[in-house]
Amino acid sequence: MNLKPLADRIVVKVVTSEEKTKGGLFLPDTAKEKPQEGEVMAVGSGKVLENGQKLPLELKVGDRIIFSKYAGTEVKIDGDEYVIFSERDVLAVIEK
Amino acid sequence: MNLKPLADRIVVKVVTSEEKTKGGLFLPDTAKEKPQEGEVMAVGSGKVLENGQKLPLELKVGDRIIFSKYAGTEVKIDGDEYVIFSERDVLAVIEK
Amino acid sequence: MNLKPLADRIVVKVVTSEEKTKGGLFLPDTAKEKPQEGEVMAVGSGKVLENGQKLPLELKVGDRIIFSKYAGTEVKIDGDEYVIFSERDVLAVIEK
Amino acid sequence: MNLKPLADRIVVKVVTSEEKTKGGLFLPDTAKEKPQEGEVMAVGSGKVLENGQKLPLELKVGDRIIFSKYAGTEVKIDGDEYVIFSERDVLAVIEK
Amino acid sequence: MNLKPLADRIVVKVVTSEEKTKGGLFLPDTAKEKPQEGEVMAVGSGKVLENGQKLPLELKVGDRIIFSKYAGTEVKIDGDEYVIFSERDVLAVIEK
Amino acid sequence: MNLKPLADRIVVKVVTSEEKTKGGLFLPDTAKEKPQEGEVMAVGSGKVLENGQKLPLELKVGDRIIFSKYAGTEVKIDGDEYVIFSERDVLAVIEK
Amino acid sequence: MNLKPLADRIVVKVVTSEEKTKGGLFLPDTAKEKPQEGEVMAVGSGKVLENGQKLPLELKVGDRIIFSKYAGTEVKIDGDEYVIFSERDVLAVIEK
Repeated sequence: MNLKPLADRIVVKVVTSEEKTKGGLFLPDTAKEKPQEGEVMAVGSGKVLENGQKLPLELKVGDRIIFSKYAGTEVKIDGDEYVIFSERDVLAVIEK
Repeated sequence: MNLKPLADRIVVKVVTSEEKTKGGLFLPDTAKEKPQEGEVMAVGSGKVLENGQKLPLELKVGDRIIFSKYAGTEVKIDGDEYVIFSERDVLAVIEK
Repeated sequence: MNLKPLADRIVVKVVTSEEKTKGGLFLPDTAKEKPQEGEVMAVGSGKVLENGQKLPLELKVGDRIIFSKYAGTEVKIDGDEYVIFSERDVLAVIEK
Repeated sequence: MNLKPLADRIVVKVVTSEEKTKGGLFLPDTAKEKPQEGEVMAVGSGKVLENGQKLPLELKVGDRIIFSKYAGTEVKIDGDEYVIFSERDVLAVIEK
Repeated sequence: MNLKPLADRIVVKVVTSEEKTKGGLFLPDTAKEKPQEGEVMAVGSGKVLENGQKLPLELKVGDRIIFSKYAGTEVKIDGDEYVIFSERDVLAVIEK
Repeated sequence: MNLKPLADRIVVKVVTSEEKTKGGLFLPDTAKEKPQEGEVMAVGSGKVLENGQKLPLELKVGDRIIFSKYAGTEVKIDGDEYVIFSERDVLAVIEK
Repeated sequence: MNLKPLADRIVVKVVTSEEKTKGGLFLPDTAKEKPQEGEVMAVGSGKVLENGQKLPLELKVGDRIIFSKYAGTEVKIDGDEYVIFSERDVLAVIEK
């Protein structure tokens, strides 16, 4: 994977059902927004605040995350599916 | 529960009717937005202000809160239902 | 009442018609937004400004206020009806 | 009148046609937004800027103003009609 | 004319066709937004920035301006038609 | 042309097809937003930032620019067609 | 190509299918927003922050990028198709 996102964006590899985190993350069958599970493959250099300061991302490469399936832009490289979106669309990190 | 939310988000375990706070929190039967009761399971590291300062959350793990049932994203882990949303969608803490 | 609101929110007990402030606050019968009368039961710790400063609320517990009946979230505790909303939705304080 | 508005709000007594400022303020019969005439009865303590500074209102009690008839919330006290709205919805002061 | 606008507002007297600036300002007959010509009769004391600084208006009384005919609120005094709107809705000054 | 725009606005003379920049600027026949070519005739004194600093425009009189044909307000003076809009609606300068 | 974009805009040459980056960037056939591949031909002088500081772009001429096909304005010069848009609409840089 050779994508470097800008600013506060991240590149995430979508985790398919059979690869999901042990212990289980199940999404309820409701009308609410449903999250997806993924792994962070690349992070941008940070968001620039109005005072000029660059704010590094909280996430790092390798983090397992859950995110809204309605967020971001899909890209497929060599058969793997990636999604690119802003860190602020990440719901939570799955701690190991 | 192994979810760590980002920024000013929290992970909340929904409190079902039979577990509700003694003394009683009853929601009126009107057309208005109705709150739900929950327990804070995890809190993010804080919201970053435009001056670069990181603002810790007011809430802490263990707090009983009420929140809008229309807020957030549902996640189910090991049979328990969680909701992830921003601290600013919390209406109030139920003091013990 | 054991609710502690966050940030710039307040918990207000709705004043019913028979309890209304003497001298009378009557709402005209028009299509415009109509206010309700209430008493402040609890106030949040304040709104955080972008420079990190915490701004205490102007209101204090015991204040009689008028507010839009379309604002906030209703909660009923032990038969009393409360509404939770931000101080910026308060129209005015009724001075004694 | 015993209402004290918050922040940058004002309480205005609506001036009826027969009381209008001499010299005459007539509103054209068009589809455009039409202003109303009123007298300022009470002013809030000011708007808080993002740097924490409190900005006093330009208006003072007794000012004759014109304002949009679509602005604000109506309140009737002892037969008089008042409107509560933000100073930024005031179009102009009628100078004496 | 005895109107004093607030903040960054101005009071403008609409210039009718027969009074228009010599050299001619003609508005094309298209679907685009069309400007009107007017004379500045009064200016507000300025806009307050978030750092508390008051920014005086660029315009002064007597300036000939063009502005969008969809901007502002019309007021008629002694038979003359005025429009009140913010300086930011002024397109340009017609230089003499 | 005797128009002086305010703040960060510019007055632009529309360049008709027969006058277009040599080397050619052709607009594709798609559903996307299409730019127009023009010459900057006058520039405003600059945009005021929230810290009170006045930011001069990047553009200067004589610059050839391309801009969205949906931007701005048209004005016709002595048979020439001008458009007034903010510098932030300019797409690019055509370098000589 | 003789276009110089303003502020935080960039001019991008669209990369057609037969020229695409080796290793392959394939876009999935879904309802989601699909990115395009392009090469940065020119960059603006930077975005001005509210404190007056000018923030240079992260991108430089020659960068291969992916961007949303719904972003920007198309321009055709000498048979080549360019798109002009803000750096914040760039999804990622394709690293070599």
